[in-house]
Amino acid sequence: MARIVQKFGGTSVAGIDRIRNVAQRVKREVDSGSQVAVVVSAMAGVTNQLVAWSSEASAAKPRAANAAPGQAALAGAGIGLEDGREYDVVVASGEQVTAGLLALALQALGLKARSWLGWQVPLKTDAVHGKARILDIPVDAIAACMARGEVAVLAGFQGIGPDGRITTLGRGGSDTSAVALAAALHAERCDIFTDVDGVYTTDPRIVAKAKKLDRITYEEMLEFASQGAKVLQTRSVELAMNHRVRVQVLSSYEDVPGTLVVDEDEIVEKQVVSGIAYSRDDAKVTLQAVPDRPGVAASIFGPLAEAAINVDMIVQNISEDGKTTDLTFTVAKSDLARTVKALEAQRKTLGYAALKPDPNVVKISVIGVGMRSHAGVAQKMFSTLAEKNINILVISTSEIKVSVLVSEEYTELAVRALHTAYGLDAG
Amino acid sequence: MARIVQKFGGTSVAGIDRIRNVAQRVKREVDSGSQVAVVVSAMAGVTNQLVAWSSEASAAKPRAANAAPGQAALAGAGIGLEDGREYDVVVASGEQVTAGLLALALQALGLKARSWLGWQVPLKTDAVHGKARILDIPVDAIAACMARGEVAVLAGFQGIGPDGRITTLGRGGSDTSAVALAAALHAERCDIFTDVDGVYTTDPRIVAKAKKLDRITYEEMLEFASQGAKVLQTRSVELAMNHRVRVQVLSSYEDVPGTLVVDEDEIVEKQVVSGIAYSRDDAKVTLQAVPDRPGVAASIFGPLAEAAINVDMIVQNISEDGKTTDLTFTVAKSDLARTVKALEAQRKTLGYAALKPDPNVVKISVIGVGMRSHAGVAQKMFSTLAEKNINILVISTSEIKVSVLVSEEYTELAVRALHTAYGLDAG
Repeated sequence: MARIVQKFGGTSVAGIDRIRNVAQRVKREVDSGSQVAVVVSAMAGVTNQLVAWSSEASAAKPRAANAAPGQAALAGAGIGLEDGREYDVVVASGEQVTAGLLALALQALGLKARSWLGWQVPLKTDAVHGKARILDIPVDAIAACMARGEVAVLAGFQGIGPDGRITTLGRGGSDTSAVALAAALHAERCDIFTDVDGVYTTDPRIVAKAKKLDRITYEEMLEFASQGAKVLQTRSVELAMNHRVRVQVLSSYEDVPGTLVVDEDEIVEKQVVSGIAYSRDDAKVTLQAVPDRPGVAASIFGPLAEAAINVDMIVQNISEDGKTTDLTFTVAKSDLARTVKALEAQRKTLGYAALKPDPNVVKISVIGVGMRSHAGVAQKMFSTLAEKNINILVISTSEIKVSVLVSEEYTELAVRALHTAYGLDAG
Repeated sequence: MARIVQKFGGTSVAGIDRIRNVAQRVKREVDSGSQVAVVVSAMAGVTNQLVAWSSEASAAKPRAANAAPGQAALAGAGIGLEDGREYDVVVASGEQVTAGLLALALQALGLKARSWLGWQVPLKTDAVHGKARILDIPVDAIAACMARGEVAVLAGFQGIGPDGRITTLGRGGSDTSAVALAAALHAERCDIFTDVDGVYTTDPRIVAKAKKLDRITYEEMLEFASQGAKVLQTRSVELAMNHRVRVQVLSSYEDVPGTLVVDEDEIVEKQVVSGIAYSRDDAKVTLQAVPDRPGVAASIFGPLAEAAINVDMIVQNISEDGKTTDLTFTVAKSDLARTVKALEAQRKTLGYAALKPDPNVVKISVIGVGMRSHAGVAQKMFSTLAEKNINILVISTSEIKVSVLVSEEYTELAVRALHTAYGLDAG
């Protein structure tokens, strides 16, 4: 009998009525003859509340009035001053509640069901509290219950560390729980229920003619996820790819097929370009007139690496006089202030003339496994943007993706033009 | 080094600021040189919310419009239709959150601290979900951590059953967790922090001259708890008495000594009467003109026992003609409607003339271990009430207690008169 894993996110379980709807959806899968395991997130909003409480409880002073700026920043980031082990105890409770409630709602529909907490499975992780990685999921117990016709309801996002303490997998970790469980159970499919009904050629809020994709490869999904599409967490896609778990992204609310994320050889007719992604989460930083000498890049990016700031795109231009260089790169918008601070602290050492941060940029990416065997994809992107008089600030490419950074005001114009240019418009 | 267990209830941890106050209180105990274990309840209000969600999730229909009355009553009682194992998963999360937050707040004060969930200790219980009994608390691990200077923060109210599932101990179970942990740790004292600063000779809201008792015996405390004083849960007092755990009831807000609940031989100067308790939780039922034949009491109380209705005080009067009898008894006010229903269903069999329920009664109890060796305690109660023209409806006595049922309107008058009569007024 086929095993299916279904995962429902926070908005799908935000309240008892929605949990009842989820139970109905699970029942349909059970009635169709599958063995079903369900993975649930915390009710929407609950995790944020628990994170806030943890930060407040671990702040030494009620208002942190005299805390050092660095402390405040860390506390604001959610995981900072506090003990990650206790943070995990608090935060994991959200998924525990949903798992119990869904088990009750399933029983009310006449199904057999039981909840499984991370430590009960056990879903074994490393000891990196707050963003633990899954090491092993011994599924004998859970599989035995499923074989007896019981729906297994797993609390997502949580596991147990080597020291017997509760761990959590980081934001969006329930997707990872679901894919990992599907891999361990050798499930036929892992259905991720969200508030969209699949993966689109681009954001339908921008392009009305965006089409839902029936299938997409792991590699493309990975690029979509890391280039701004919020449908699936990057880590869960990597895990699915590594274990060849067939993932379906579909709607919690409508009972229609979604998008299947599969191996490349399961897709017969490959598109050259599958879709257009965009991300407003990046910011651009330009260092003007940096003395052009060996090791200058290392001396710039060293301090950023030390501050745990990830740098994405990088362009270096030699200036006309050949003695200085302009260096442009992107960081996450949320890291921009810290980036500027770190570079200003090194101004004398680096010797640059000016530091120009710019948060008003967007990264637009054209994605498709077909471009491996097709030339001219990047050229079409550049000419399309040129026709619309959109200036490209930075370019970066990979085997199945071309990304450009442009001024944020062109987001909609650029995405629509590219969607048409690559023949993705519906109808 | 002395081990101390401290227990903080729901109102003491209702919010981050209060949790910080609790952390300060714990720190003072640590600074005084004790090894400290803390037991916490869920934040006030949280458990009620979780119970309500469980009931709603397990109701088959959104509004339960077509549910049988019995079902609705059960669901309303909190533990009913639902699977007790899943109910426990949901409800136990409340204490988990508080334990983690308090550990964080203690760390913010520079203390070493860690949370312990029921399954981590493990606090082993039987399998009666929703009101499990504690079987064993192996304290090696927790004691080792305490010996290293770490404050152990135990999530109250929860344990782990023989099947590895989470159990809960029933309402007020955190008191029981605390006393059981104190017994297992051979703690010098178990401090129960509440919103009152100790046990009083009677309710200070009624008698301004009520005095705080420095010491009280287990037996008296048990009577106080079961006769209406809400300071400690009856079960936790029984446990303390059985294991000779010295319990102190004291205020979460003020740093003053509370009332010590101890063995009788720790109290040098025993009072004849320690205090006056009252309970408005009872209701009176009178069956008039029941045919007086052998077995009539059994035929009346049998159906009530079957309906799990506890009967407390019972009086039977032979009528003047000798052929019928009037029977009066008390039940919990919350059981009154079900009691009437059960007896009306048996009306033909029982053959009584009239059934008179009366919820407007109060049970007033005079309590004191000293009355074992002093005559006249009951007589003084009766004469005091007679002087105030208060009619006694039912009387019951035990070795250390005399209880009377009177009309509810006399509550304050009776309690004040008795408090004065037994010489309990302060100053």
